[in-house]
Amino acid sequence: MSQQVTQEILSELESLRLIDPHTHINPLSAASETLADIMGYHYYTELAHSAGLAKEKIEEPGISPKEKVGRLIPWLATIENTAQYSWLLEMCKVFFDFEDDRITEANWEGLYDKSLTKMQADGWEKQVLETSGLDQVYLTNDFDDPLTGFDTNFYVPCLRTDDLVFHLTKPEVRARLNKCTGADAADAKSLRGAIGQLFTHFKANNVRACAISLPPDFSPEKVSDAVADDVVSKAFSGKELSECEHKSLSCFVFWTLAEFCVEHQLPFDLMIGVNRRVFEAGVFQGQDLYDKRVSLIQYKALFNAFPQVTFPVSVLSETSNQELVSYSWIFPNVVTNGHWWYSNIPVFIEKDTRARLQAVPQTKQIGYYSDMYKLEFALPKFAMYRRILARALAQDFVVDRGWSVEKAVELGKLVLRGNVEKIFGGIG
Amino acid sequence: MSQQVTQEILSELESLRLIDPHTHINPLSAASETLADIMGYHYYTELAHSAGLAKEKIEEPGISPKEKVGRLIPWLATIENTAQYSWLLEMCKVFFDFEDDRITEANWEGLYDKSLTKMQADGWEKQVLETSGLDQVYLTNDFDDPLTGFDTNFYVPCLRTDDLVFHLTKPEVRARLNKCTGADAADAKSLRGAIGQLFTHFKANNVRACAISLPPDFSPEKVSDAVADDVVSKAFSGKELSECEHKSLSCFVFWTLAEFCVEHQLPFDLMIGVNRRVFEAGVFQGQDLYDKRVSLIQYKALFNAFPQVTFPVSVLSETSNQELVSYSWIFPNVVTNGHWWYSNIPVFIEKDTRARLQAVPQTKQIGYYSDMYKLEFALPKFAMYRRILARALAQDFVVDRGWSVEKAVELGKLVLRGNVEKIFGGIG
Amino acid sequence: MSQQVTQEILSELESLRLIDPHTHINPLSAASETLADIMGYHYYTELAHSAGLAKEKIEEPGISPKEKVGRLIPWLATIENTAQYSWLLEMCKVFFDFEDDRITEANWEGLYDKSLTKMQADGWEKQVLETSGLDQVYLTNDFDDPLTGFDTNFYVPCLRTDDLVFHLTKPEVRARLNKCTGADAADAKSLRGAIGQLFTHFKANNVRACAISLPPDFSPEKVSDAVADDVVSKAFSGKELSECEHKSLSCFVFWTLAEFCVEHQLPFDLMIGVNRRVFEAGVFQGQDLYDKRVSLIQYKALFNAFPQVTFPVSVLSETSNQELVSYSWIFPNVVTNGHWWYSNIPVFIEKDTRARLQAVPQTKQIGYYSDMYKLEFALPKFAMYRRILARALAQDFVVDRGWSVEKAVELGKLVLRGNVEKIFGGIG
Ligand SMILES: [Zn+2]
Ligand SMILES: [Zn+2]
Ligand SMILES: [Zn+2]
Repeated sequence: MSQQVTQEILSELESLRLIDPHTHINPLSAASETLADIMGYHYYTELAHSAGLAKEKIEEPGISPKEKVGRLIPWLATIENTAQYSWLLEMCKVFFDFEDDRITEANWEGLYDKSLTKMQADGWEKQVLETSGLDQVYLTNDFDDPLTGFDTNFYVPCLRTDDLVFHLTKPEVRARLNKCTGADAADAKSLRGAIGQLFTHFKANNVRACAISLPPDFSPEKVSDAVADDVVSKAFSGKELSECEHKSLSCFVFWTLAEFCVEHQLPFDLMIGVNRRVFEAGVFQGQDLYDKRVSLIQYKALFNAFPQVTFPVSVLSETSNQELVSYSWIFPNVVTNGHWWYSNIPVFIEKDTRARLQAVPQTKQIGYYSDMYKLEFALPKFAMYRRILARALAQDFVVDRGWSVEKAVELGKLVLRGNVEKIFGGIG
Repeated sequence: MSQQVTQEILSELESLRLIDPHTHINPLSAASETLADIMGYHYYTELAHSAGLAKEKIEEPGISPKEKVGRLIPWLATIENTAQYSWLLEMCKVFFDFEDDRITEANWEGLYDKSLTKMQADGWEKQVLETSGLDQVYLTNDFDDPLTGFDTNFYVPCLRTDDLVFHLTKPEVRARLNKCTGADAADAKSLRGAIGQLFTHFKANNVRACAISLPPDFSPEKVSDAVADDVVSKAFSGKELSECEHKSLSCFVFWTLAEFCVEHQLPFDLMIGVNRRVFEAGVFQGQDLYDKRVSLIQYKALFNAFPQVTFPVSVLSETSNQELVSYSWIFPNVVTNGHWWYSNIPVFIEKDTRARLQAVPQTKQIGYYSDMYKLEFALPKFAMYRRILARALAQDFVVDRGWSVEKAVELGKLVLRGNVEKIFGGIG
Repeated sequence: MSQQVTQEILSELESLRLIDPHTHINPLSAASETLADIMGYHYYTELAHSAGLAKEKIEEPGISPKEKVGRLIPWLATIENTAQYSWLLEMCKVFFDFEDDRITEANWEGLYDKSLTKMQADGWEKQVLETSGLDQVYLTNDFDDPLTGFDTNFYVPCLRTDDLVFHLTKPEVRARLNKCTGADAADAKSLRGAIGQLFTHFKANNVRACAISLPPDFSPEKVSDAVADDVVSKAFSGKELSECEHKSLSCFVFWTLAEFCVEHQLPFDLMIGVNRRVFEAGVFQGQDLYDKRVSLIQYKALFNAFPQVTFPVSVLSETSNQELVSYSWIFPNVVTNGHWWYSNIPVFIEKDTRARLQAVPQTKQIGYYSDMYKLEFALPKFAMYRRILARALAQDFVVDRGWSVEKAVELGKLVLRGNVEKIFGGIG
């Protein structure tokens, strides 16, 4: 029975058009131009590298897209078990009429050429969006992004703030900040002013969220004015900061961001738990990992200090999911947000989804975002999520709690789309 | 096949009468008087608050029970996905003949009035107990509870000791202690004497366990007499204690409790992992959360020092369940105890139950307690647990290991009731 | 449908002959001689002890094997729910024609006698190996093991190094090292030389891996020559080491082992997360537990410094499995290795297996090892794993991803055997 119910729910969910509330799409080049844009995604290069393909082969300067794909192909045999590979296969089937069950050294060239023709045709971007049912795609924008040249009602800006919080001691980051604000930050007050300008610029361009990824040992707290002045001055005069001063600087900037989120009524996406550059010999974007020893208790001061700001929280480790569920159950300003990166794998999504559906108010759950770099990925990723969601709704709600299919579908739609609109704002 | 087996096992388990080994029932007012007693349970107020209902609305002084319920009703729509809501619905259906699938602004008044009539009828408490199949209900008693006015064979006292271990620096706690023991504790020896008096009083009133909830950073150890004398004297003379001295004081009192558990042959319930008042703007009883970074290794010294004391251990985070399984598998004096609070959600109960059934001696598992504040909650909570237990027994034992249904039921009954009697003592 | 597919996959997997890549078999006495060898396994003694059997009863000097078994039998009733008991029952059924569903005080003597006859018959060891389908059994050898008297192509040596890394401050360990190397280590250089000799000796005897178990707080790093000289000299002159010096000594030896793994092209098995002697009053081998607060980030320096060494990693806590999956997904030299000890329980194996199959390159997963002390245990333990693996393949690959049964079986065989040969080297 459960299987048939799953199917019924799934087809309803499949008819729903989507908003993707977190991606890394470049709105000026949103769709893939060759298969290398798809297979060059770090999920494939890092897995192939992990399975044995040399980094130099993958990242050799000047190789053609086709050559790059050709070098990756033999390694697909080692990763065809992975969920990541299943996305690739689904993209090739849906978008490029690929009909085999494996992409191999024997059949890849045909696939490459066929896909190239499709991607080079006029309107490929539109076609991908249509096939994928996407109504809106949220971006990840550097603080100095001009936000021009695209429709911000479709490709919605989000202000990404990692550089501001963690890299202000790098001269190039300060230079970028000074340049785009036309100011010369030198102390806490002028830095706050500069940050305020960023918010104004983004707000004028339909920004829907401030966002940041955070290392496991970060614990935001309010910094006194005196300390803030001291560390900002030091940083902006190019002096070396101690580890402790560095933390104060990060805390000051972070706290300031939260204050501007209040002022501009913006949600603040927290993506908690990543350690950067753990494997420095890894491929591009394939160097980051994590330390699961992190707790949301580290955000106690923040969640208490900013009741007016909604914090959509993503956690990197599945061992953090129950904390996320519990904190969202208690704090009005904490909501669950998608299935991030190393937790974006069916077995984890399944358990995490069930826990959220069973214990967090249904209005406080953002079901999924694709985190994609190229448009084609939304389709297989959302498809994976929808299947898991449908099964959870069928088993835990229709079978176990006697819900009607309609009611289960209603819940699924809320989590998949309704809450995205409510929390970030609807379609322009 | 598995589904039918589950059903067979479930009906057997449903015929079993229950002992509820941990509740917060007030024996002088055990059953609810209005629907506000049920919907005022912090599980509902905190979820409604989290979903957007203002605390001031919920906790406005002087509002009538009906007014309170009326204010909560519109928010039920936001939490009807939760397991907590499913308990509410099941209570209304079983106890108040409610027949709809949702409690709404349209139908709640009828429900309120009907339930009021039922609850005001003579013998409501008895009726709830009968419908719920409860043979015994364990309490949570303050150390200065007179334990009078009720049948301690039915409402069984447990000595709750959080105040003694963590709050002796508060003048009002010391005053309560002095008052109820008629003594004037001033040093380690006299404090020990006072605590001994509490045990004697409770023991004379059929106490079945000493109990405490513990923060994630607590790690009990024996404190030297000199240090104990020092910190107790300081505390009882009203002096400020350093953080370190505070820990010593807590350790001394905790260790003393364990010593009296030896003397009085009492199990010592440990509920491990809660941080109090994390969200201070939260509703009554809806302010506590946790830090999952806790390990049972913190209790190594305790478990080794008190082989004569049985420690029924509850853990707040599901990430602690495997440690609990492993420690119960190795330590003769550690037993698994129920599914506590943020882990009392089907998806967690399911996994935790399966792990315990698969790896802990069957005689060392206390399946479930309701943690209820009002009698009506035992029914839906135990029902939820029983369904999960029946499914685990069907799948993991009957289907996977070829057990007979009888044998599986036997195991279920042991875990649901037999062990409670063996570990805490049977019915007077 | 899923059940039938599981069955099809399972029978294919059951036809596969096995290599067991980690055991504690004594090759000079590999099979059991009496039922006491089987029931004396710490999994039974510690569970019986935990359920109430006194350690003195179990470990009384001079009791006969039959007496020992007789004392354990009554306690089986308390642990027949456990997975560990299910292995016992399966061994008795398969090897000793036991036909009842429970081993009881009424039927055990017949079982004992019948099994004795079987075990005393000529060729019992061969028969067990044949029934179990074992082609090769990897050992755990002390560093001073002469490695003589057995066929190292069948019973394959692995150099176990816990003593070297953690116990060099014990005079008896240093004496054993000096004796077997014929040298007199006194400083970093001579100690390195002695360790090199061990590798040469093992390499000459078909060693396939260096192996070690590690406590949760261990974090290997390179130690400077000066510090190494200092702490080694101190240790070998019998002086007391500070905690910090002790760590440096451990790090130096550990790092040296990794260097020799490069030189001799050996995988380095890391078994991460055990605390030894947590319960000192426990039975033999039943005293160890763990602290789940451990992260693979602690091995960042190691994994980066030794790209040439393959590290098959086992984790003790299920909360570490996702980290293991993620680190194996990123680091080319990290592979997942089996289901260790407290995680070798169906509910954990199931989730951990699914996660690995879904996100780690299929060539980087060693499915299972028995960890057995006596040959008879490989059969039920691998059988347990195979059933779980078959179900995961059926559900997640055939049903959910539309794989053919053949392809799923191929993946199963790779994980069960192919990768073992590829990572450790095939059959001589
Ligand atoms: Zn992202
Ligand atoms: Zn309680
Ligand atoms: Zn081992």
